[in-house]
Amino acid sequence: MSAPKKVVIVGGGFAGLNAAKRLCHADGVDVTLVDRRNHHLFQPLLYQVAMAGLSPADIAAPIRTLLSRCRNLRVLQGEVTEIDLTNRVAVTDFGTLNFDYLLLACGAQHSYFGHPEWEEHAPGLKTVEQATEIRRRVLTAFETAECTTDPVERKRQLTFVVVGGGPTGVELAGAIGEMSRFTLARDFRNIDAKLARVILIEAGDRILTQFAPELASRAVRELEELGVQVWTSSMVTSIDARGVEAGSERISAATVLWAAGVEAAPLGRKLGAEVDRSGRVVVEPDLSIPGHPHVFVAGDQAHCPGQHGKPLPGTAPVAMQQGRYIAQTILNEIAGRDRQPFRFQDKGQMGTIGRSRAIVEVGRWSFAGFFAWIVWLVVHVYYLTGFRNRLFVVINWAWSYLTFRRGARLIVEKEWRSQSVANADHR
Amino acid sequence: MSAPKKVVIVGGGFAGLNAAKRLCHADGVDVTLVDRRNHHLFQPLLYQVAMAGLSPADIAAPIRTLLSRCRNLRVLQGEVTEIDLTNRVAVTDFGTLNFDYLLLACGAQHSYFGHPEWEEHAPGLKTVEQATEIRRRVLTAFETAECTTDPVERKRQLTFVVVGGGPTGVELAGAIGEMSRFTLARDFRNIDAKLARVILIEAGDRILTQFAPELASRAVRELEELGVQVWTSSMVTSIDARGVEAGSERISAATVLWAAGVEAAPLGRKLGAEVDRSGRVVVEPDLSIPGHPHVFVAGDQAHCPGQHGKPLPGTAPVAMQQGRYIAQTILNEIAGRDRQPFRFQDKGQMGTIGRSRAIVEVGRWSFAGFFAWIVWLVVHVYYLTGFRNRLFVVINWAWSYLTFRRGARLIVEKEWRSQSVANADHR
Repeated sequence: MSAPKKVVIVGGGFAGLNAAKRLCHADGVDVTLVDRRNHHLFQPLLYQVAMAGLSPADIAAPIRTLLSRCRNLRVLQGEVTEIDLTNRVAVTDFGTLNFDYLLLACGAQHSYFGHPEWEEHAPGLKTVEQATEIRRRVLTAFETAECTTDPVERKRQLTFVVVGGGPTGVELAGAIGEMSRFTLARDFRNIDAKLARVILIEAGDRILTQFAPELASRAVRELEELGVQVWTSSMVTSIDARGVEAGSERISAATVLWAAGVEAAPLGRKLGAEVDRSGRVVVEPDLSIPGHPHVFVAGDQAHCPGQHGKPLPGTAPVAMQQGRYIAQTILNEIAGRDRQPFRFQDKGQMGTIGRSRAIVEVGRWSFAGFFAWIVWLVVHVYYLTGFRNRLFVVINWAWSYLTFRRGARLIVEKEWRSQSVANADHR
Repeated sequence: MSAPKKVVIVGGGFAGLNAAKRLCHADGVDVTLVDRRNHHLFQPLLYQVAMAGLSPADIAAPIRTLLSRCRNLRVLQGEVTEIDLTNRVAVTDFGTLNFDYLLLACGAQHSYFGHPEWEEHAPGLKTVEQATEIRRRVLTAFETAECTTDPVERKRQLTFVVVGGGPTGVELAGAIGEMSRFTLARDFRNIDAKLARVILIEAGDRILTQFAPELASRAVRELEELGVQVWTSSMVTSIDARGVEAGSERISAATVLWAAGVEAAPLGRKLGAEVDRSGRVVVEPDLSIPGHPHVFVAGDQAHCPGQHGKPLPGTAPVAMQQGRYIAQTILNEIAGRDRQPFRFQDKGQMGTIGRSRAIVEVGRWSFAGFFAWIVWLVVHVYYLTGFRNRLFVVINWAWSYLTFRRGARLIVEKEWRSQSVANADHR
């Protein structure tokens, strides 16, 4: 029997984790998964952390715990900085890793269209830290408004701008609208939390372009019922500490959130393969890169053409299927079988708006409202990795739903040191 | 009917919150509670957050939610910077507040005995931020050890020093010992997590001095069963990035935690009243300050003599009883009744060691072990404020207990911005 093939997986997101699970216990492979973070994050529910509905630990779990039963697999926390394709070596910040097969699945990060200085004023939503930062900003705005006597400043504190009309932007805007109307309204004395303004800004002529126009219109109506104004054909031209500029218009807002654009993780550019405008690596039909059949790219980092010519979207189902496909391709090859091209099984798409509404599209069939929300809930709870998380999320949601309360309304500071705080008068 | 009396409460800890609850719905008072933070924190379980057993939101709740039914009461998030006793005005960072009665209950923070530079290397455990910082350091140490090939560095990463042999130090040391032996052991490949060294350093000649010597000895034995070494009569003389020095001894440790000393919040020193060595305000038998019967100090910020002459300890029961007593004293005075001196009802004390052991002392009766832990668990869950928290904490504990897993093993970074991270290669 020959030595096991060394498989290195970079990234423990949906693609990497699902590849690792498929390779778990398989004969003939010795797997190393490397991630900068110690945890796998269930990104589709990250907006719930930002909106104080869930705790970070409800939707994140240590990668090594999720894979602890796999004896042919080890998990290392660290950063891959270079890939040497010729010698088949991944260079990390803790040493080098040789590989026979490599899977790059490092995901994507926010892109500010050449304005990195906007990030300071308009955080995006990709990591747990960003989610708690958004939570801190939104809750602090309400607290500051409660202490303010100046009506202009109060209005600015109660104005929330979300940039980007994709699913994440719609989720964030809907959740802020709902939170201000139902959850916070009864807790404040000086302000009427229901007067909060939520503005969703989209550069294109409509929101949710990946959905059918009727479904997107339905979403707009449901957003409006939560007090969210949708501004389409508005291109943001400036973001600073006071607010947002979109062409000749200007909104004073204490809180601006960014859900407008993503770009692939930069490691993909170091492969020497073609990348698209967003930095995604253009892959072959088997998700390998040209000339290097033992190097695969998957998930948000890959540019993979779909059945209609358009590249597959950066969603969890795509990443999960790609991860499993690549693992199976490696196992097939070790067993001497030929490669098959990757085919994405599209099971439909969905998005949620506020507490109890959603839109669902499955093939040509689409529906919206409360039943759609139930479908959305069941699907998301089902896919949420690990039994504990599922159980907790259901209880937490049920609680929020029954009481109109939000479970995790903590304002957590960025600084933990007490001595460096100038006026540490009271907790 | 005369105008309601203005009561200002500074601090939403156990003393402030319990005073506010007693004043809720009462006639003749108009209450303002000011806190720097938006949440009340159940500090006795904060070590569980640091040890990844609970999420921050499990033991913290927004103060305004806890008091939202009290129509005569408002909650403001802000910082009180000065007290003008003559004009009865509290100066805050958002304006001034007039008061007829003032309750100062700002708590305490860590004291590094004149070495504030130690805090960088040895975080204490008073806030949610500090708890997640400790969690980050402890979990990162195991991850780093897993990636390290140098045995000396690996040993340093797996060495944990806890400074201070009081209840918090014992809880932390016991929990690290237990976590390394049961929870993490099966998740790592390169290191044997059970080889982790945990050292509890105490300057005095024994730990847990507030407990009877036999009970403290029992605690030492139980710590040793979890692999914790207790070093008594060891005075820490230096802490740096590499480890700890105690006199002529030196330990290389990647993680040092501080549980050795506290000092009262600095606002107490601005009252002009006598303060003790730890900055606590020396109060009259009715918890007011000399010459100002309408100004009260309570909780960790007050120096209040107990029945045996020793000042009352900085524990939750003392703060809760003081808060309720002060509220009742104010209500009595408005009703024209005389003041009674404060009497602390001592219901006993307890401490926990690891997953399923505790020590309990009630009057002259004391016991230890698993039954003591059940008592500890019931008491803590009962007192944990707010129904939701109680339910969640029980489920979470039950889960951790049954599975030997830890629910919140997230390593969360301090920086949320992606653009400022030099090598944002993968998530």
